[in-house]
Amino acid sequence: MQEFVVLISEKKSILAPKNKVFTSKYGKIDTAGVKIGDCITLKDEIFVVAEPSTPDLLKKCRRGAQIVMPKDAAQLVAITGLSRGWRCLDAGSGSGFMSLFLGIIVGRQGQVITYEKRADFFSIAKKNIELFKLDRVVAIKNQDVTEFRERNLDLIFFDFKDSSILIKKAKSRLKPGRWLVVYSPHIESQLSALAEMRDNKMHISATVETIQRFWKSNFGYTHPEPSGIMHTGFMTFARKVL
Amino acid sequence: MQEFVVLISEKKSILAPKNKVFTSKYGKIDTAGVKIGDCITLKDEIFVVAEPSTPDLLKKCRRGAQIVMPKDAAQLVAITGLSRGWRCLDAGSGSGFMSLFLGIIVGRQGQVITYEKRADFFSIAKKNIELFKLDRVVAIKNQDVTEFRERNLDLIFFDFKDSSILIKKAKSRLKPGRWLVVYSPHIESQLSALAEMRDNKMHISATVETIQRFWKSNFGYTHPEPSGIMHTGFMTFARKVL
Amino acid sequence: MQEFVVLISEKKSILAPKNKVFTSKYGKIDTAGVKIGDCITLKDEIFVVAEPSTPDLLKKCRRGAQIVMPKDAAQLVAITGLSRGWRCLDAGSGSGFMSLFLGIIVGRQGQVITYEKRADFFSIAKKNIELFKLDRVVAIKNQDVTEFRERNLDLIFFDFKDSSILIKKAKSRLKPGRWLVVYSPHIESQLSALAEMRDNKMHISATVETIQRFWKSNFGYTHPEPSGIMHTGFMTFARKVL
Amino acid sequence: MQEFVVLISEKKSILAPKNKVFTSKYGKIDTAGVKIGDCITLKDEIFVVAEPSTPDLLKKCRRGAQIVMPKDAAQLVAITGLSRGWRCLDAGSGSGFMSLFLGIIVGRQGQVITYEKRADFFSIAKKNIELFKLDRVVAIKNQDVTEFRERNLDLIFFDFKDSSILIKKAKSRLKPGRWLVVYSPHIESQLSALAEMRDNKMHISATVETIQRFWKSNFGYTHPEPSGIMHTGFMTFARKVL
Repeated sequence: MQEFVVLISEKKSILAPKNKVFTSKYGKIDTAGVKIGDCITLKDEIFVVAEPSTPDLLKKCRRGAQIVMPKDAAQLVAITGLSRGWRCLDAGSGSGFMSLFLGIIVGRQGQVITYEKRADFFSIAKKNIELFKLDRVVAIKNQDVTEFRERNLDLIFFDFKDSSILIKKAKSRLKPGRWLVVYSPHIESQLSALAEMRDNKMHISATVETIQRFWKSNFGYTHPEPSGIMHTGFMTFARKVL
Repeated sequence: MQEFVVLISEKKSILAPKNKVFTSKYGKIDTAGVKIGDCITLKDEIFVVAEPSTPDLLKKCRRGAQIVMPKDAAQLVAITGLSRGWRCLDAGSGSGFMSLFLGIIVGRQGQVITYEKRADFFSIAKKNIELFKLDRVVAIKNQDVTEFRERNLDLIFFDFKDSSILIKKAKSRLKPGRWLVVYSPHIESQLSALAEMRDNKMHISATVETIQRFWKSNFGYTHPEPSGIMHTGFMTFARKVL
Repeated sequence: MQEFVVLISEKKSILAPKNKVFTSKYGKIDTAGVKIGDCITLKDEIFVVAEPSTPDLLKKCRRGAQIVMPKDAAQLVAITGLSRGWRCLDAGSGSGFMSLFLGIIVGRQGQVITYEKRADFFSIAKKNIELFKLDRVVAIKNQDVTEFRERNLDLIFFDFKDSSILIKKAKSRLKPGRWLVVYSPHIESQLSALAEMRDNKMHISATVETIQRFWKSNFGYTHPEPSGIMHTGFMTFARKVL
Repeated sequence: MQEFVVLISEKKSILAPKNKVFTSKYGKIDTAGVKIGDCITLKDEIFVVAEPSTPDLLKKCRRGAQIVMPKDAAQLVAITGLSRGWRCLDAGSGSGFMSLFLGIIVGRQGQVITYEKRADFFSIAKKNIELFKLDRVVAIKNQDVTEFRERNLDLIFFDFKDSSILIKKAKSRLKPGRWLVVYSPHIESQLSALAEMRDNKMHISATVETIQRFWKSNFGYTHPEPSGIMHTGFMTFARKVL
């Protein structure tokens, strides 16, 4: 797979293939022989060569479906304590962002299995997993999630319509005390998920929404961005009891 | 160190020491010989025995200083891509929550060094690190952070007053492209940090605040919690260029 | 009725009866002969004597039921254009705050009719209306709102459980193009109100929630209040078509 | 001046001149002889003829400068108790929206004086005041606000850069206990206004920001609008003491 470096200046960042001549919007860049820490000057702007962080690589990902935003994905770490070694089920894959996120956290001691029935999304997600070199952590299946057979899971993440029909099954496939998380943009999906979770005697931990404001500060004028993302999704967190 | 299990019912969760008789607010509980997945009945309520998740253990932590909340800590993962193997500096330790959070993510391939000059907070943070068995990942020093000597860091997290005086030094100790994050409840601290970051030609990624609303839904009445936490802190994220 | 003045210092405000000796938490105060603009010193603090604004008087109001907060009440002005001369129906009265608010805006050229079936709330609301000297603007009835007979209304405000059962009737009593507003803390009430409004071919203007953050700034430390009111109610605004 | 009616259907509203044939995006409309309550069919959609509410007319207003949004303007009513008969100063006029809002509330027993030094904004604001037939309530001056001479005011509203330089003067022109409100998008303006207010021994009531979320609900999918206005301005409210 192609390797990348990221070129960072005060104002910009460019994800660049390693050891290649390529054309960016800042002109032709030759990364042959450049090493981490080197400086490159493009149009009078100095860039340092750095190891990409995850957010750099995410910009390179292909997108098909709506993605779960990092602010929301990160709540899995905040609320469930998701960490190395966990075995996770992610459905549906969409563009694969949540699987990448899970895969990075759980690492090779863990595992992520992800289902995507649509062939186009499956293909996009697969490429993104390869871009992140997570093939050994994330297994993607071009199948309907209703057929999932995994057991003994630490975390199940549902981001698809009518996920409430799968809650009973999901619960039965979790380890005791482990987590089912239902994400959706609509309050009704949360309500039907909650009802199913209660019917299945799960321990409801929380239903949350996470709102992020970005501030700007220039020349002594500081303020939140005037417009932006007001809502992405609600997330309900429940744990298996019986 | 004491090991724990968590007992989870539909409505409650109890962190319990392993193999011990102890008195909880639900009465005397004997965990001798209980295994993950066993069921225990306390006052007519059925609890399952489970492996604790991080949030279960956090409840057991001692608290001295104000802690950084999980919703905010998790933004490090969301925005910097913090992951396994990173070398991090955390100052000041406070109750050690941020160091625990960082330690869990970076794991043994990574490292967290944390500074706390106050003896009382140092002692609390040290106990919390031991509770999480992170002694081999998190090194805590009872020293003023201004004296820190670490180099070659992936992430520096500042959560103390007047952190802007250390930004020049912090920048010089980061790997290229890596991250300095300044957390504070006050907008002025963000502004002085921003000014220092710009003077040091860092790449300013974002200043954010993250607001979380918890929803309740009972008997067909669904609504966000009427009162709660409106504000914790602002976070500014910057990357080293030169 | 008792008349009031408000005494305002840099840090405090005290609503005081006119021409009386009364005991406040700042000691005995004699308002005999004081005029607007006079200064009074209480415990080394200088207070000016002023005409009360509405928010001063609201603090004197008795409270029984949960009140609609000013930030929300004010959205009636923002979204419907509520103004002088409008004829309004308010149900249920609760402590009468919404009726006071409506009465102040519509004035003597307008009218507010308010229904409250509970005798205790009715009595509280009645006293509050008298305190504001709005008896000639606000007519309060100790009756169930389902029996309301008013016609030709500019605004109907519903703040009671199951208000959706009255929407058909409410619509029929509005002038063309005029406004029905349903307030409730729960999303389900909004959904059933919306469904009824649509069934009655009303023009749905908006469903909103209004969140207010209060900032503090002292000694160079500026930040939103750490905790506060996260949620009061949703409001749906609809206009009569047919 | 031209009079208007508003035509309202389930989905649309059209502000239409009275007694005219005019071309709208829904085709030619003839309002000659139509009366409030009449129904008109345009492209198979039934519209009722109604008296315009303020928000209908606002859509017709010309816009030059950034306007203060209704959600924010309405906080004057919520927090100061602005009502009939108040004498207000509004600077700068911008497109005149705040003056319209104030004028509607204070009515002919009250008065609004507004300053706008830019000729283009002055001209726009003047036309908008005429559109609302508020010429007898709102006096607009094409002058720099620093020269204002009014005294004995109930409310002063400042929405212009560097308004802190006028706070001392503003305070001296207020009635005792009455209100100075500083609006601005930037936190720094609030801080310098606050400092001046404190230097002038004003009673600081609050600094607020008001955030509004609009919800959508269609076919059983209910959610806040995904994107929208995250920030308009901060408002600081202070009262004159000495």
